[in-house]
Formats: sequence, structure tokens, C-alpha cells
Amino acid sequence: MSKKKVGIVNITSYTGMELARLLSRHPEVEIASVTGRSTAGMELKEALPHLSHYDITITEELGEVDIAFTALPHKESASKVIELTERGVKVIDISADFRLKDPAAYPKWYGFEHPSAELLKNAVYGLPEIYKEQIAEASLIANPGCYPTSAILALSPVLKNGLIDEDIIIDSKSALSGAGRTLKNTSHYCEANETTTAYALGGHRHLPEITQELSLQGGVEPLVTFVPHLVPMTRGILSTCYGFLSMEKCNKVDSTYLFELYADFYKDSPFVKVLSSPPSTKQTYGSNYCLLHPTIDSRTGRVVIISAIDNLVKGAAGQAVQNMNIMLGLPEETGLDMVPVYP
Amino acid sequence: MSKKKVGIVNITSYTGMELARLLSRHPEVEIASVTGRSTAGMELKEALPHLSHYDITITEELGEVDIAFTALPHKESASKVIELTERGVKVIDISADFRLKDPAAYPKWYGFEHPSAELLKNAVYGLPEIYKEQIAEASLIANPGCYPTSAILALSPVLKNGLIDEDIIIDSKSALSGAGRTLKNTSHYCEANETTTAYALGGHRHLPEITQELSLQGGVEPLVTFVPHLVPMTRGILSTCYGFLSMEKCNKVDSTYLFELYADFYKDSPFVKVLSSPPSTKQTYGSNYCLLHPTIDSRTGRVVIISAIDNLVKGAAGQAVQNMNIMLGLPEETGLDMVPVYP
Amino acid sequence: MSKKKVGIVNITSYTGMELARLLSRHPEVEIASVTGRSTAGMELKEALPHLSHYDITITEELGEVDIAFTALPHKESASKVIELTERGVKVIDISADFRLKDPAAYPKWYGFEHPSAELLKNAVYGLPEIYKEQIAEASLIANPGCYPTSAILALSPVLKNGLIDEDIIIDSKSALSGAGRTLKNTSHYCEANETTTAYALGGHRHLPEITQELSLQGGVEPLVTFVPHLVPMTRGILSTCYGFLSMEKCNKVDSTYLFELYADFYKDSPFVKVLSSPPSTKQTYGSNYCLLHPTIDSRTGRVVIISAIDNLVKGAAGQAVQNMNIMLGLPEETGLDMVPVYP
Amino acid sequence: MSKKKVGIVNITSYTGMELARLLSRHPEVEIASVTGRSTAGMELKEALPHLSHYDITITEELGEVDIAFTALPHKESASKVIELTERGVKVIDISADFRLKDPAAYPKWYGFEHPSAELLKNAVYGLPEIYKEQIAEASLIANPGCYPTSAILALSPVLKNGLIDEDIIIDSKSALSGAGRTLKNTSHYCEANETTTAYALGGHRHLPEITQELSLQGGVEPLVTFVPHLVPMTRGILSTCYGFLSMEKCNKVDSTYLFELYADFYKDSPFVKVLSSPPSTKQTYGSNYCLLHPTIDSRTGRVVIISAIDNLVKGAAGQAVQNMNIMLGLPEETGLDMVPVYP
Repeated sequence: MSKKKVGIVNITSYTGMELARLLSRHPEVEIASVTGRSTAGMELKEALPHLSHYDITITEELGEVDIAFTALPHKESASKVIELTERGVKVIDISADFRLKDPAAYPKWYGFEHPSAELLKNAVYGLPEIYKEQIAEASLIANPGCYPTSAILALSPVLKNGLIDEDIIIDSKSALSGAGRTLKNTSHYCEANETTTAYALGGHRHLPEITQELSLQGGVEPLVTFVPHLVPMTRGILSTCYGFLSMEKCNKVDSTYLFELYADFYKDSPFVKVLSSPPSTKQTYGSNYCLLHPTIDSRTGRVVIISAIDNLVKGAAGQAVQNMNIMLGLPEETGLDMVPVYP
Repeated sequence: MSKKKVGIVNITSYTGMELARLLSRHPEVEIASVTGRSTAGMELKEALPHLSHYDITITEELGEVDIAFTALPHKESASKVIELTERGVKVIDISADFRLKDPAAYPKWYGFEHPSAELLKNAVYGLPEIYKEQIAEASLIANPGCYPTSAILALSPVLKNGLIDEDIIIDSKSALSGAGRTLKNTSHYCEANETTTAYALGGHRHLPEITQELSLQGGVEPLVTFVPHLVPMTRGILSTCYGFLSMEKCNKVDSTYLFELYADFYKDSPFVKVLSSPPSTKQTYGSNYCLLHPTIDSRTGRVVIISAIDNLVKGAAGQAVQNMNIMLGLPEETGLDMVPVYP
Repeated sequence: MSKKKVGIVNITSYTGMELARLLSRHPEVEIASVTGRSTAGMELKEALPHLSHYDITITEELGEVDIAFTALPHKESASKVIELTERGVKVIDISADFRLKDPAAYPKWYGFEHPSAELLKNAVYGLPEIYKEQIAEASLIANPGCYPTSAILALSPVLKNGLIDEDIIIDSKSALSGAGRTLKNTSHYCEANETTTAYALGGHRHLPEITQELSLQGGVEPLVTFVPHLVPMTRGILSTCYGFLSMEKCNKVDSTYLFELYADFYKDSPFVKVLSSPPSTKQTYGSNYCLLHPTIDSRTGRVVIISAIDNLVKGAAGQAVQNMNIMLGLPEETGLDMVPVYP
Repeated sequence: MSKKKVGIVNITSYTGMELARLLSRHPEVEIASVTGRSTAGMELKEALPHLSHYDITITEELGEVDIAFTALPHKESASKVIELTERGVKVIDISADFRLKDPAAYPKWYGFEHPSAELLKNAVYGLPEIYKEQIAEASLIANPGCYPTSAILALSPVLKNGLIDEDIIIDSKSALSGAGRTLKNTSHYCEANETTTAYALGGHRHLPEITQELSLQGGVEPLVTFVPHLVPMTRGILSTCYGFLSMEKCNKVDSTYLFELYADFYKDSPFVKVLSSPPSTKQTYGSNYCLLHPTIDSRTGRVVIISAIDNLVKGAAGQAVQNMNIMLGLPEETGLDMVPVYP
């Protein structure tokens, strides 16, 4: 069987180049076309020297492909996605433009009117651990955000099982690559090194995405306080999620019960590992794993769940490839068997 | 007036060497004696090359001093403190050995029977923003832990004013120097770099200290979940503290109200700065400041307070010097007017 | 054809665990046995959580294998290698114990009498770009040191072609993983972070290895000054190598000539890439590449060659796998097609 | 005596803000005026939160001052300096615009015609360890570059004493703050973290400055190869300088001789410390020290001198304050007695 042709829109973003890294060893697809903006016309290996094994020219528009990854900023992505779907190309959109089910959320959170309520309705939220069947049938995937991936995988088992009530606090610590490749003062080395800071206390754009998905898991809309932080690393997100055991569940839940609940919930999810000790983000570096450590704070009866991912892999490009595999009818691990780079 | 003579026990610890840095510019005291264990007999400048301006020999026992800082591990510190107080020396103990009022807490949290209930009773908890008057009269100061300092300063104003109920979550991010100078795998460069991890989920030793002091502020014992994390930095703690507005306070509290409440609470505290935007730990690097950013998450009606300190200064050695100043009747800022080293 | 069985001695060293990462995707071999010292008896995934996909128990002694990697400290390695070769196992020794041809160098540089002059004579220096044919026939490989790999690949083309005279300066900058996993003050996070330092100015143990190999390339013994430095990174070595053009070559050599000479010299070496701009170590992160940038300082007529490698891959485990491939008659790239992890 | 009024042009640069940090504790001067470009009109504490203790507004033009520090990019600085000197203000220029004695060097190395050969002639190169007397009389100081400071202090003693011949290699490792606060890809956190790279191999702008001063010390123009590198730190430069002992000196020079020569050369220089073991840049962090370790590579008879500075202090703002002190007839250490921040 010949390999499927895939395209990457905006290859020079961190997500775009990570897709190229991951797909370079994929046995069933080949990168047939890549686009860039200021780099259009350059050889890929010239624009991104670490991808020196590719012989492909960056173009302005995407050539013939079976499936495309779009790694553009929000709003720009939506119009490109519409164009590609009209050409009959299956699309995995890594921007936020098709993640929120409610079109009214776009003007509020992203500052633009959504250009296609129709496509928005058809898009499938690409979290394979929850929506594998829908992904298999989809022609447009809204690839989840990095923070939402870490939070939803951490909290779904307790919400789905009605163990916690609606008060939820998510305290996330992210590496700098989550802030993208665009130059800005807060990502300037001397400003970002040796410091930790909280940001977006007024409401981060990933909050409505988190709330939407946690509502679907728990059946009611939770009251989420989400505080993202930047820590001086290149890759990785650690989310510490706090919940309050529902009154009626208090007696029967302990850490062992929780561990087994999580292990069972994710028994068919090859990339989620439930651990009995707290993970560090480095244990996921360069890999598609999500490491979960669910515990009970026995003094207060609260649930504390830690999740660790590589924000560029399970939080972006790796999850996108996982979605592609499912759409193509391949085992979801195909080409994603990277061992974390440690130390 | 001649300068007061001060001593530092265990000068080669990170706290000990930071004391030497801070005191080198202090106009009213001089370092008269320093002790070490494996380094006894060496010149200080030989053991710690960055302190090359000092001409002093490290000894095994402390010489004649008016006031001493003890920077030993817990349990070891207690016996040294007892010995020094018997010699009539005023002591600022940087270990945890005199912080907990309840002697029964020592076997439980630190694994040893406290050797002197008497001294424990007389010791004053050295958080100058709360206990300035008692510190002025004290002969033994229990210098607060780094995490407790960041958490208590963040939460005292809302507790003292009855704004929040007893459910409190403290999510702290600490630099590696908080783990000390003793070699261990988790502080090995290649294991600690480029990673974030939560630890002590079963209960960190600073929890009873935090709870004790928050109880005193709020008048009731709060239910605290405290999760410390290690982030790849040398210095700094950022604590993100979450509280729930009491029912009766919900209507009248907004971010402006909170800002003013904090500004007023700390109006006589020169080292606490209340900010209208989130601080980064780098803004405290090498200085004795505690930066606070109190906010309301308006979607959920929760209080979120961010605090940033340099764990070795306001979280240890700087606070100790501040306590010394108060004990000696000096302005508390004396010798502590260091501007943060930025970037 | 069934897979070859390989063993790893001292799996918990950084080199040992990196071998496990690299071999996990190797199509022609399987890890059949791994040994540890303090971890003997544990499951590999328990001792090293990032290797969670392996189902293998760490043992004290190596089981039945066709080929073994020994990742022990020097001197200890020699006795284990002797034992394994007596069992008929092919060995790739990652220690320094079989790298120096002159037995008298061991007491001088490593402080022990070499236990087998015979084996030492038979061992092949495992730098595939130079000794591919000998490696194919060898039963014992002395896998090169990380600094020597970076320096020898940088300097061989100019020495082999008689372009430079005997005065050579090698200034190398290494990540901390090169100092190993053993706890020591200089690898403690707070001591190693945010600092650069030169060390071993009296003569680093890799100097005789570098001199030996450069002598063989150039035909005369060069006068090498080698100064290693530690920089705050986990992985990577950048070596800046300085040479003086021989009088008779001065006129005809320019940067273009040099570039072509290097490109030609390494035309059959898939892991060496000759670049026209200076590389950064991050462009090799996690991969087996050696990036070279040869230039002429036209003001002084000197040759400056920059080389970049990942010290744990091309400088240790990756090169060892490359040697194994050649010994097994496989293409040398087998299983080593990892794209650098960037950013 | 009333305090002298000083001004800082371009306070928001890294050098400008470091001047503000250093001068905040200076007993004899006060900051009377600070300028900015995009920040003109803002309060200093608003533009730079870590300088919260200053009550001063950033203006577009400098007010009345006795002495001014100019921290502008090259070319822009020259016109501002001309304007200030015409106003009768003494100036310490931190740019490169008055460092090179030969006006013809400006078009070649900096791309502009120098606007005032007159002022250029009168400017004094502000390296106090060499030019203290001239600085005391000067009205315009060309504050040395960071790389040149580290290299000239390292090499002057051997050149002045005719110990080495003209072949010199300087391999420098710099922190990112040396690249300034202007946003650029190579200073973006994810591109600069965990990597080391050489740059400016075709000739760095600091080369003519280094050559000019080494010529003056040695009496002949040396043949310098200077290769700067970026390492992932915020502050610090480590320069490793290689020289060749002159034939006639070979016999009598050993490491002890060299140590004593350096100790004597700098016996009246309070900020230069000659060490018998290699320094690390962290031992200078935040301080005005230059640490030197001169050695002989006994195998090859070469001189290797290591120098470490904080590039923003001794390499820029600290040296500028040291120059100011000398110009004002104060002891050169005034206000510069900061102990390095370690760890």
C-alpha cells in the first residue's frame, strides 16, 4: 500500500517542526508538502537545520495531500481550514479555532466572529482517550490545547464517576515553548530564565475549552479556577488539579481506590500511564505520554491529581499524529513509540 | 557605639553563606565567629571563594558573640540552641526546631522528642510583619520556613479580616536551593534541570507550621492542602494561594477592595509590596522583598493570592537579619536595602 | 532471522539508560539482559520510570547475550570485559579501559595497572568514521570518549591532509551529563546552574586519547592544549579547535577549500554533517549527529573548526550502537535515525 | 558636601537598569534624571518593577546632571555624547562609539563615519586597572566592552612583561544578557536554553578593541583569534586565553612565577583577584570582581589564563561606576562593595 500524503501548514512554528520530527519515522505516511510565510521558497533544511534529512521546499500554498495539519495562529487558521476542507482534504487543526462548540465563545475569548458555524459543529475534539470513535469518522479535528489536555486527562475519571463536586482548581506550570516562537519580552531568555510567574489571572483562553470538556465528563458545569504559570523550561506542563470529594463518596474513596479507578479508566489508552508516585515533566520529554498520579489528601479529604506531559507532543504535535492514525484506521501508537529523552 | 558581635553556626550551608553576604554590608554588626563541621580550621575565603573579602577562620565551636544565627539541620539545631542560650547568647534559629508551639508535633513531623519544652514556649515566631513587638523582646527567635513565609504573608490579610472560609489550597513552586546543599539525586543537575515535579504529597513538614500560623490569624484552624513543587531555578518561591470567599462577604469584595485591604495591612512593612499585576520571582532575586498580588477570580468568587520571595533571603537569611535588627532596636531595613538583581 | 540478544552492564548510568532508549526502536536486536549494582533485583521500569515500556528485571550478572555494552567506571570495566570476552561475548566497552594503546598510560592517567595487555592490543578504537573496517572484524570495541569524539572528528581532515602543523588548541564546552550520575558538589544543581567554569587544567584524562588518535591521523605527535569547560546544560559538547596552517599550505587554503575537503572526507559518514554556518549543540539533541563547521580566520591564517555533538549519543551510547551495527554487518544507521529534539 | 547628580540615558537597557541597581546604594551620588525612548513619561518603578524604591519619572531628554552614563546602541550614542559634552556634562559612554582610537575603524567595524574625531581623541579608555590616572582627568570615558574587559585584564600582565609572542587565541563564553534586551531569535528562550554555540567567526566587533589595547600593552600588534560563544546563562563571561611563551622566557616561567607576576601586577586593583584554582562565573554574580587564574600548560609550554566577570557589572555598569568614582576623586570601590550572589 502506498503511503498517505500529509501536509503541514506553517512548518516553522514549534508545533510544525515537531510534527516534522515525529512524522520522519512514521511508517505509513510521508510529508508531501509544507508551507511557511516568510520562509516560503527556502529549502526546509535551510530554514530548520535540525531537519537536515528532509529534501523538501517550503511553499506558500499546500500542494496535493490526503490529510493536513494546520499550525497557524487562531483566526488565520479558520480560513485556511475552510479552504482545505473545501478541497476535500482532511484536516487536523492545531489552533483553537474549532475547539469551542459555542460560536458565541469566539468573539468573547478570541476576538473574532467564527466564519463557519457549520464546520464548527462538525469538528471533533481530538482527545483520543475520550473521543476515539468520533475521531475515526471525522474529517476535521480540533486538536486540544496543551493545558486542556493535561487537565482533562487528569480530571475526567473522577468527574465521570461523580466523585467530586463542582469546585475545581487547576494550577498549571508550563514551559516556554507553549508561548510559541513569536518574539516577545516574556519569552526573551534573560526575562524568562531563573523565574516563575503566574499569568492570565483574569481568564486564560484555555479556560472555556477546559470547562466545556469537564462539563461533558461530569454532566454539570464545574466552577473552575485555572491559573497558568511559566517556569524556566523548554518543554513540559505539570498540572496540579484539586477537587473536593462529594459528600456521599467521602467514606469509600482512598488513594488505592483512586489508583485503580484511573488504571481502569485508561486501560485502553496506550499513552496514559497511571503512577503511584508523582511524575516529573522530564519523564515525558520528547514522548507522547501523559503521566497521571491521582491521590487523596487524607487530612482534608480532597482529591489532588498531578499530570505531566510534553506540551509539544501530547499537548500538540504528538496528539495530532495520534488523531491522524485513528482517522487513517491505523493503531494509534503508529510512529509514536518514542522513549522519553532522559536525562 | 561599637558594633555588635554576631556568630553564624554552619556557615557553609546555603543559609549560612547568605547570612555572610547580607551582613557584609551591615553598618551595626560584625561577624565575629563562624563555625563549620568538615571545614573547621579552614579560612572562610578558602572554603567559600565568593566570600573572599572576609578574614576569618572557620572554627568548630562558636566564640564570644552577642547574637548567633544557627543554620543547622533540625534536631542538631535544638541542642546547639540550648547550649548557646545557656551561655546567654541571643539566638535566631533558622531550623524548624522552635517553630511549632506544640511539643507533640516534633515526634510526629520531625521524628524526635523536643529537648526543651521551656525554650519552645519562650521562642518567638520570627515573622516581623506579624510579630514585631514580640520579636523586639525575644531572646530566641524561630525563624520561619521559606514556604510558610510565602504562604502566611499571602493569606494573613484575608484571614485576619474573616474574608475567606476554612478551605485553603496552597500550591508552591520552589527553586532548588530550598532543598539545601546536601547532595541528593533530586538536586543533581541533570535530574533537576528542565523538569517540574510535585513532591511531599503525603504531607510536607512545613504544613503544621503553616496551619499553626494561619489558625492564629484566622481564629479557627483552616483546612489546608499544601502541595510543594520543584522548578528549575536556583532561588525563588512562588506560592499561589486559593481561598473561598465567606458567604457574607461575597457581595462587597472585588479586586480593588482586596488590593486596598492588603496595602493597608502591610503599610508599615517595608519589605512587603502589594502589586496590581502578578510578580515573578526574579523581581525578588537577592533581595528581602515579598511581592503580593491579591485578586478575585470573578467567575467563581474565589480569592487567588500570588506571593513571590527569594527563598534564601526573605525565606531564610534576610528575614533572620530583619529579626536581628528588631532585637537590637535598629530600623528593620538596616543593611537590607539590596535592590533585586535583575535580569 | 531472529533478533540478536544484547546486554547492558550498569543500566542505571546515564550511558546505560541512553542505550536502552536507543535500542528500544532497533529492528534487529533485543535487550535480553541488563545489570545494575544497587538496583539488582528491581524491575527496570521501577528503577528508571521513563523506561516504562520495558519488561525486564535488573540482575547482578549478565545473562546469555551475543553482544554486551559495558558502562562501568574505569578499572571496574576492565575486569568485567575480560570476564565477558572469556565467555565468548563480543563487547563494546564504553569506559576508557581499552582506548589507550600504550599500557603504560593506564597507571599514569587512570591510576591502575592494566590487567590485560593482550586484550588491549586486540581492542579496536570504535570511531566508525575512521576505523569502520577494523570495527567490522573486532570482538572488542573501545568506545571513544565524548571529548575525543568531538575533537578527532573536527581535526582529522586537516591533519590527514597535512594542512596544519603540530600546534593545536582544543577548547571544549560540555554539558553536565558528561560528569555522570554520581553525586558530587560540582554537579549539584545550585552549584552548576548559571555558571561556566574551566577544569582539569593540569591535564584531563581524555588528553592522551586525543593525542594518540590525532597522531595516527597526522603522522606526527601534535602538541595539544586541551581545556574542558562545564556549561549549564544537560546534554551537548561544543568543541572549538584551533590550528595553524602549515607554511606551504597558506596560499591555497580558504574557507571554501576547507568546506569541500571536509565534505569529501566525510562523504560516506552518514552521521557527520559539514555545515557552512556555526552549529549549536541543540541541533544534535538526542541524535547521533556530529555537526562540523570548518573555517579559516582570514586575519591570522588560522584554522578554526567547530564541532557539536550530543555527548550521550554520538559521544557515548549512539556511537556504541553504531559500532554494534557495523560488528553485526548491519547498515550503520540502523535504529539510529532519530531527528534531533528541537527546541 | 551635597551629592553629585548623575543621569542615565536609556535606563531600560540591561546596562541602564544595572546602573540604577548599583547606584541605589552609592553614598556620594544620586540619580537625578533618567531617559527612555518608548517608556518616556512613565514612572521608573512602573517600567521596571524591580526598581520600586525609586521615585523618578523617565523623560525623553536628560535634565541637569553633573555626570551622565549613556547606554545607547552604537552610532546613536555618539550624537547624544556630543550633545552632552557640549552642555558641559562629563560622560561615561557605555557604547563602543569612543573606544577605537582610529576613526577609520568605525566605517569598517560599525558601519558609520565617526562624527567627531576631536572627541574621539580626547576620550579615555575606561579600564581603571590600566588607565587610572588618565581617567581621573578625563571628561569623556569610553567604557570598555564586556569581552575586551575579560580579555585585556587576562592578558596584560604577560604582554607587558614580554612573556608571550604575538600568537594569541581568546575563546570566550558569554551569557545571554550580553546580547542585550532587544528581541531576537537567538535570544528567544527556547532557542537559547540548553545550547552552546559559537558566533561571529568572521570577526566580532570587539576584536579591534581587544587588539588595540593588547598592542598598547605588548608594544607590538598581536595576532588575535577571538571566538565568542553563547552559553545558557543570564550573566557572566568566562574567557580562556591561550598564548605561547617567548623562546627566551621558556625556562624561567612556571605557574608559581606567573601567579606572583599577576598578583603583583594587580596589587593596587581592588576588583581583580588572582586565584590559584579556576574560577566559575557564578563567583562574580552581581559583583564588580574580575577573577583571574593564570597557568602554564607544562606539556606544551603554553600560557593559559582564565578570566571570569559578570558581564553586566565589571563588563559594563560596575566598571562605569568605578570610572565615575575615579573621575569624582572618590575611592574606586565606593558603592561597589557588593558580595557575589551565590548560589
